Amino acid sequence: MNYDFTTVINRRHTDSVKWNVKDSELPMSIADMDFKTAPEIVLAMHEKLELGAFGDEEAGADYFNAVSHWYQLEHGAKAEPNWMIFATGVVPAISSIVRRVSHIGDNVLVQEPVYNIFYNSIENNGRHVLSNELIYSNGKYEINWQDLEERLANPLTALMIFCNPHNPTGIVWRKSEVERIASLCQENNVILLSDESHGDLVRNNVKYTPAFSVAKTLRSNVISLVSPSKTFNVATLHAATVIIPDNNLHDIINRGLNSDELAEPNLLAIPATIAAYTEGFNWLHELLAVIDNNFAYVEKKITSQLENVKIVSGPATYLMWLDVSKITHDSYRLAAYLRKETGLIVSAGSIYRGNGNEFLRINLASPKSMVEDGISRLITGIEKYSKK
Amino acid sequence: MNYDFTTVINRRHTDSVKWNVKDSELPMSIADMDFKTAPEIVLAMHEKLELGAFGDEEAGADYFNAVSHWYQLEHGAKAEPNWMIFATGVVPAISSIVRRVSHIGDNVLVQEPVYNIFYNSIENNGRHVLSNELIYSNGKYEINWQDLEERLANPLTALMIFCNPHNPTGIVWRKSEVERIASLCQENNVILLSDESHGDLVRNNVKYTPAFSVAKTLRSNVISLVSPSKTFNVATLHAATVIIPDNNLHDIINRGLNSDELAEPNLLAIPATIAAYTEGFNWLHELLAVIDNNFAYVEKKITSQLENVKIVSGPATYLMWLDVSKITHDSYRLAAYLRKETGLIVSAGSIYRGNGNEFLRINLASPKSMVEDGISRLITGIEKYSKK
Ligand SMILES: Cc1ncc(COP(=O)(O)O)c(C=O)c1O
Ligand SMILES: Cc1ncc(COP(=O)(O)O)c(C=O)c1O
Repeated sequence: MNYDFTTVINRRHTDSVKWNVKDSELPMSIADMDFKTAPEIVLAMHEKLELGAFGDEEAGADYFNAVSHWYQLEHGAKAEPNWMIFATGVVPAISSIVRRVSHIGDNVLVQEPVYNIFYNSIENNGRHVLSNELIYSNGKYEINWQDLEERLANPLTALMIFCNPHNPTGIVWRKSEVERIASLCQENNVILLSDESHGDLVRNNVKYTPAFSVAKTLRSNVISLVSPSKTFNVATLHAATVIIPDNNLHDIINRGLNSDELAEPNLLAIPATIAAYTEGFNWLHELLAVIDNNFAYVEKKITSQLENVKIVSGPATYLMWLDVSKITHDSYRLAAYLRKETGLIVSAGSIYRGNGNEFLRINLASPKSMVEDGISRLITGIEKYSKK
Repeated sequence: MNYDFTTVINRRHTDSVKWNVKDSELPMSIADMDFKTAPEIVLAMHEKLELGAFGDEEAGADYFNAVSHWYQLEHGAKAEPNWMIFATGVVPAISSIVRRVSHIGDNVLVQEPVYNIFYNSIENNGRHVLSNELIYSNGKYEINWQDLEERLANPLTALMIFCNPHNPTGIVWRKSEVERIASLCQENNVILLSDESHGDLVRNNVKYTPAFSVAKTLRSNVISLVSPSKTFNVATLHAATVIIPDNNLHDIINRGLNSDELAEPNLLAIPATIAAYTEGFNWLHELLAVIDNNFAYVEKKITSQLENVKIVSGPATYLMWLDVSKITHDSYRLAAYLRKETGLIVSAGSIYRGNGNEFLRINLASPKSMVEDGISRLITGIEKYSKK
């Protein structure tokens, strides 16, 4: 290891939302990591500060080339710089796109259980959530294709928000699946918005399929959203890239992002993204090994000590998805109990809807010592809850 | 002088929008300064980078107290921390407020000629610009009160965007004027949105009147927008504060900023704003002296060498407003000519509408050597144009 993934950073009593908790509490719900980002990125930030004068900026060729370079080298996928638009975040871009490609009262399709903030982007804008709920059986999630076809064919369905890879289940969709979805969306004139926030965070040498990389004939209504935010623990960098192969769709979304004031980079966004995408490779791959190690550790602990809990995680993300259906059908109550009794804060699966009421989500992107603390609290709490 | 206002920073071939010009050109149009910001701010930024982990943040008491502290000490005006909301910029906040307090088809009142981006916020959201044009006579602008009353009384007028102090004219409105406007807005159930971006940049010991500081009985529909952006040359810090004394209006605007994803601070926004508002005093007051000096220099030059040009600037902003009515009624053409012939880029007054077609706006927030170069190009260009 060349990088430090063991030091515990103290973010208590800072402005961090994750760490705005009681001193006795341990937050493992909100999805940011307790590791320092790659030093190469911090160095680029320090260097930018030397400029001293911080007037308006625009992302140019060096920014878009760096994004393109990363997707070529890391994912073997070709994204042309002129397909790209800078945006101040994945979620802001989702909301803006919801407003541009659908109308009030339209349906936006998602696959529950899924990243809860999608619901805000849809419902805050007066659109309706339509769910193609994932089928859960034998500890595995699958797409219900017939249901998907039917819902995409609904004349009120204008947009599908696809979580690729999938948060909270960690599923990495196969290329054939991504292409089948793109094809169905195309047939039904539904825009396919693929949130690829977790695309870099895939373990076990599995590779995800960016939506922009589907067969050329299927790209006409595809949008990929990518960002160093999750990958490099820089959510407050407020930098994301919208990748749209179709020229006309590109211009429509570009108008929306600009008039929503979501297209202007802050003073760190450009240099830090360039550093991440051109110098972040080694750090990321060490990180993935560390997360893999944490997953293995937790798996062993849970398998041996919590026989009623089943791990249902795919290879993506640092978030573990735990089936607690043998313990409760109300994960919200269980999560509240764990917090009260042990101080451990995990996400109640119910916020992701679908069958999430029988799941917990736990964030494992922390130094080993913190993960050990968390899992020991989890075991204590669940044992106590089960004995009630 | 304890700070450096003489070094010329080279931002050519960076991502700067202002400096994205030919090597032979000199940009004095876009309103950012060619000075390095206060070193206290840069230090606070460097320190923040040491944290390393950049997950979601929320502005808390220390942020709002710093804003409050600044308005008390610098402007003698009391803003309660609980009146405040963090926003990612003045312009994004304006757009969001336009959407929350007016409907498509409504009128939004402004006082032309005025900061051109107001028109974007209004028109991009499907509202109409209604102008209470400033009266210009004897080289001075005044408010047309009767016209203002009539337009505020128009049942379709929902909002007034007040530029306080006024860009591009540099006018600092008297307290009695601000209160009279607040009172007229209140009578007519029009929300008064006061853009105070230039409030700190007032020379000659004149003080501006924040809208939140009007008489208590007049505060029910008043919103002030403040930011270190212009003051400290940190536009890409993306930090602003919305100040709303009325509880109900505060909550309405808060919902809008949040669902528009304009309420989350990036990783530098909080510490840099706190540093600006608690340690920026000395730097700002040296800056004002430097700008004052530049104004005096340019005044002398223009008075002696360009008798057809009249300076019409109030004590606010680093932007000088030049009456060129004796030379042209098409300032756009004159500005294009200056750029082509001398490389000097100034703003054509016409973009501010109103009587701007007979004005140029020139940015004097640059090291003296750059101002000298600019004015010499201006003189050459205007002399040449006049002889055509
Ligand atoms: C699927 C997904 N999309 C988006 C985000 C947030 O992205 P951003 O911080 O760029 O808005 C997250 C964060 O957890 C996420 O899991
Ligand atoms: C009156 C006025 N408001 C707002 C702005 C821009 O503010 P922000 O960068 O915070 O959006 C400017 C910049 O020139 C301005 O002159």
